[in-house]
Amino acid sequence: MEISHISDPSDPRLDDFRDLKHSDNRPDLPGGKGLVITEGPLVVRRCLESRFPVRALCGFEAKLESFLAEPGVAELVAGIPIYCVTREVLAEVAGYDMHRGLLAAADRAPALSVAEAIEGARTVVILEGVGDHENIGGIFRNAAGMGVDAVLFGAACADPLYRRSVRVSMGHVLRTPFAHFGGTPRTWQHELGLLDGFRLVSLTPNTDTLLKEALEGNPDRVALLVGAEGPGLTERAMRATHVRAKIPMTPGTDSLNLATAAAIAFYERQRAQLQLD
Amino acid sequence: MEISHISDPSDPRLDDFRDLKHSDNRPDLPGGKGLVITEGPLVVRRCLESRFPVRALCGFEAKLESFLAEPGVAELVAGIPIYCVTREVLAEVAGYDMHRGLLAAADRAPALSVAEAIEGARTVVILEGVGDHENIGGIFRNAAGMGVDAVLFGAACADPLYRRSVRVSMGHVLRTPFAHFGGTPRTWQHELGLLDGFRLVSLTPNTDTLLKEALEGNPDRVALLVGAEGPGLTERAMRATHVRAKIPMTPGTDSLNLATAAAIAFYERQRAQLQLD
Repeated sequence: MEISHISDPSDPRLDDFRDLKHSDNRPDLPGGKGLVITEGPLVVRRCLESRFPVRALCGFEAKLESFLAEPGVAELVAGIPIYCVTREVLAEVAGYDMHRGLLAAADRAPALSVAEAIEGARTVVILEGVGDHENIGGIFRNAAGMGVDAVLFGAACADPLYRRSVRVSMGHVLRTPFAHFGGTPRTWQHELGLLDGFRLVSLTPNTDTLLKEALEGNPDRVALLVGAEGPGLTERAMRATHVRAKIPMTPGTDSLNLATAAAIAFYERQRAQLQLD
Repeated sequence: MEISHISDPSDPRLDDFRDLKHSDNRPDLPGGKGLVITEGPLVVRRCLESRFPVRALCGFEAKLESFLAEPGVAELVAGIPIYCVTREVLAEVAGYDMHRGLLAAADRAPALSVAEAIEGARTVVILEGVGDHENIGGIFRNAAGMGVDAVLFGAACADPLYRRSVRVSMGHVLRTPFAHFGGTPRTWQHELGLLDGFRLVSLTPNTDTLLKEALEGNPDRVALLVGAEGPGLTERAMRATHVRAKIPMTPGTDSLNLATAAAIAFYERQRAQLQLD
């Protein structure tokens, strides 16, 4: 492997790591770079092992050294440019003090179709109107931990490949298959028909059916639909599902954080599977 | 009620709201003010309704107007000074742009003893070594939503009354009783004996017992112990409990976020209670 030491913050080889606070707010939009940025050894490694082609690594000398000495990393970074910089140079390039000291920039992998993402899946989660990057990252992390096989996006969701989502997901955004439904904000629900054979369960406080009742019988394939905190799922989305289910809550309290509510749904699903499988 | 309009950021009446980014990092330490700061109408209202004595309100004209017009608020703010400021003045005083536009400063209420906090409680959560304000806030929010009656602190936890914890908790830090065990980091576990009649359950991945098994029989009183992400509970703490229990996780994935893991434990406890009560 070849490591280049760069001391000039304006060096164009560092352009992939420039102004990260701004330019990747919406990497899918003009002005964004469309790159996937990962931070820290654990997530950078997951990126190197993923289907996302890594363009370059950048880090502090000590961090790079210990990372490159990890078993298997030398093979993973073969042919990938590695830039060694000081903390000051990286702070000036990235626009913030990246104390983790290790970054990777990757290209976006080709998008999966819904059919590809759910192939062989027994449990999937579908998001509608979730604009919060932290909740999206949290859902991927919880999904990975509790046996959810794919994440699907309906309308009006934020980009799961945004830097903050990738970080909060612990890199699971790069590992767990995900796909976007087509259609407009009002028509994507028709495509739920692609999920043939799945029991479609809407998570909502406005029902008397408990989550555990909705999952009774441990159906072979389950899709859990969640909407944003506050507005929740649209009526149109819920109407396209088989059952509406709630997490029992103390009356008069606030609803749970979205990633937390999703985690509880994943837990209940896994609980049913463990009991009956 | 009497509203004072203040246009001078150096006005000493605004001192309770000064430099909030810095001075309340550790309000319990010298240099911190020891005040409880709440933000936004929902949480400010909960503060006014709590046992924490509110010293002053501060907000933008429009935000104050709509808040003070809420049913019941006039009675709650009787005798409390209200300061009306512009966004610019508040930003200069507080040290950040408080877009919610409404703040309250309260004194700390007298600390509860463990015995007071658990009086009548059927489910409590005990934290050990949890230094993350967001996780502490999240645990209070989830506890309130899922029927947990009190939060107890073992050794080495962050201050639950820190501004960020209060906000993430949605103000439930001010409503749900909490107390600190005495003793040193190595001796507080002896005081777990105060929880006479509780089944003490340690949450840890390093056991074969599932959470649902640990809660079987729906014991009348349950205390759930959780440690920090990463290190988890100390062996000493776990040894002082009746049973160690895990949330089933996909092998090779990361452990859950602490507040999420706690939420799942609360859910499982509530699930058992709902089934059998």
